[in-house]
Amino acid sequence: MNLIIKKELLLNNLNYVSKALSTKNLIPVLAGIKFELKKDGLYLMCSNDDITIETYIQKKEIDEINELGNIIIPGKYFVDIIRKIPNDYIKIKTDGLKIIINTETAEYNLNGLSSNEFPNRNLEFNDNPIILSKINLKDIINQTSFAVSTQESRPILTGINLKIKNKELECVATDSYRLSRKKMQLQEKIKEEINIIIPGKNLIELSRMLGEENNNIEIHIFSNNILFKYDNILFQSRLLNGTYPDTSKLISNDSNLKIIVNADEMYNVIDRASLLTTEKEKNVVKMEIKKEKMIISSVSQEIGKIEEKMNIKKDNENEINISFSSKYMMEALKAFKEENLEINLLGEIKPIIIKEKDKDDLIQLVLPIKTF
Amino acid sequence: MNLIIKKELLLNNLNYVSKALSTKNLIPVLAGIKFELKKDGLYLMCSNDDITIETYIQKKEIDEINELGNIIIPGKYFVDIIRKIPNDYIKIKTDGLKIIINTETAEYNLNGLSSNEFPNRNLEFNDNPIILSKINLKDIINQTSFAVSTQESRPILTGINLKIKNKELECVATDSYRLSRKKMQLQEKIKEEINIIIPGKNLIELSRMLGEENNNIEIHIFSNNILFKYDNILFQSRLLNGTYPDTSKLISNDSNLKIIVNADEMYNVIDRASLLTTEKEKNVVKMEIKKEKMIISSVSQEIGKIEEKMNIKKDNENEINISFSSKYMMEALKAFKEENLEINLLGEIKPIIIKEKDKDDLIQLVLPIKTF
Repeated sequence: MNLIIKKELLLNNLNYVSKALSTKNLIPVLAGIKFELKKDGLYLMCSNDDITIETYIQKKEIDEINELGNIIIPGKYFVDIIRKIPNDYIKIKTDGLKIIINTETAEYNLNGLSSNEFPNRNLEFNDNPIILSKINLKDIINQTSFAVSTQESRPILTGINLKIKNKELECVATDSYRLSRKKMQLQEKIKEEINIIIPGKNLIELSRMLGEENNNIEIHIFSNNILFKYDNILFQSRLLNGTYPDTSKLISNDSNLKIIVNADEMYNVIDRASLLTTEKEKNVVKMEIKKEKMIISSVSQEIGKIEEKMNIKKDNENEINISFSSKYMMEALKAFKEENLEINLLGEIKPIIIKEKDKDDLIQLVLPIKTF
Repeated sequence: MNLIIKKELLLNNLNYVSKALSTKNLIPVLAGIKFELKKDGLYLMCSNDDITIETYIQKKEIDEINELGNIIIPGKYFVDIIRKIPNDYIKIKTDGLKIIINTETAEYNLNGLSSNEFPNRNLEFNDNPIILSKINLKDIINQTSFAVSTQESRPILTGINLKIKNKELECVATDSYRLSRKKMQLQEKIKEEINIIIPGKNLIELSRMLGEENNNIEIHIFSNNILFKYDNILFQSRLLNGTYPDTSKLISNDSNLKIIVNADEMYNVIDRASLLTTEKEKNVVKMEIKKEKMIISSVSQEIGKIEEKMNIKKDNENEINISFSSKYMMEALKAFKEENLEINLLGEIKPIIIKEKDKDDLIQLVLPIKTF
């Protein structure tokens, strides 16, 4: 392999693929980046147990290609070197399994591995992928993924459940204390029904990589992996095995009291009212709905108490007292883009349902916490 | 106590004093801020085992003073509340040992402590303080403090040794692997000789608080504490007991080879050459001086090797090979404001001395590391 390439271009692509670099370093090959310089351009690939990322730099974007070839380069060190080299163009060549980078004043020598040692990750496509815009995919991920469980005790809950039937897509995430559900209509009908569980943290990683321009993404789903294809990037995630709990019965349309709130205001009120709460005690705050007011309060025997009030609209005269985790409620409120939200209250020990007024495409559910 | 005060003003002052809040919380009173609303204004004080900070807000800056008084307020919670209250003006009153903050829509209640419980910290002045400009004090701290030891095994080395004799001030910091020495001439003669050891981390905290304007600072030194007085702030640090090692013999004027380097260039060259080194192995790089070149290299059996070259000026034809910690050398180089530095080399196992050309006011010393 022997090429000259613009530093910024190489670095951008390295930054993408290195998201899939194994940091545990147990298997040296997974701490490496596979370089394949082919006739049509340069392919970079990283893979850990969870995700595989490949990017492709077209031949015409590479300044000089003197010799094709492929090799695995120690990832972290190579990225650090490219980042710190002051030159605008980088000359990379290999000599057997050595990678040599030359500048006018320096020589960097890295020990590579044969690209044959790289695990075989099938980055396959299927014939009719699902098409989503980047913005829609980012919304789906950002409005649900925060609700996945971080506990490995129920691994299935660390994933997001993606279901597609005909044109309807539904994503659910829950850690069993709160739940997020996003629905969306696809442009085209999907032939086969889809019901898979994607690790939440992989989707969060993908969402961070998506960038600002709003092109489309192809989604290719297989029995044990999912592949996202956009720009010059392939992003593959493994799927979680198992059956996702049926949560549909949790979300009821009944309500004893519907209130309309301003999302930002409620967020800030809860934020301030929870200042005396601790994570250890689940950041519990109490909510009272009384006349046209919502009163959020927290008490700490030792430190003191806080009471915050805000105006709301109600659909009837019912009053209610309910306690919940301020952290979960704030994350739920933050997930919406709309200002005016509807909160459905059924009773002190019933789930709190938050959604946009007259719209069901995003639902956030927070379970109350019993206090004495 | 009962007053109305501008939020930003209060918050600025809280941010200063809260640097001395005890985070360990073992003694509740040290996790509190002492408020004293006196005829002439509001005094805020925090104190932990290490430092005591007092700020003063003049009467005329306070919007309403309805009742004088004093109390200890739970620090962290109070600061969080003031930071998050959206109002521009804050109304604070006490009712016995309760602190009450009222806004139109909220009430915050905190349990205070009697200000009698606050430990007695004598923030005394003496008759002829040392006067330094903020810039000079920041230079002294920033150019030496990074070299203090972080190991508690030799507590004396966690401090900076400050000596003053007549008009000459000298600060030394060393962790026994490298040493920083800063000298400065004072405007006025000091009557008594001074030789004290100030905890390095307290000085770093002070340096961060100093702000941008370049007024003067008064320094009042006592047998077991040092007090810095500037703007509306008093900052007191305890001193370390013990005898600081005599390091004067380490700094020799002899040299076998003097080289002149560009500080930034050498910093970047070492930064890149050390990319394969690890902190566990002291980030050792090798320096070779050969003809008019400096060659910095590092080798890792596993990963590879790096060699960086730069041009230098020399005072004679001697050549030398020497190894050192890249981290220590980079920190030493960064301490200088000048571009052109002189490096004195005496031999492979002799200290490396770095200073400005023809100037001795700042000296950085790095011990070599023997390699095989």
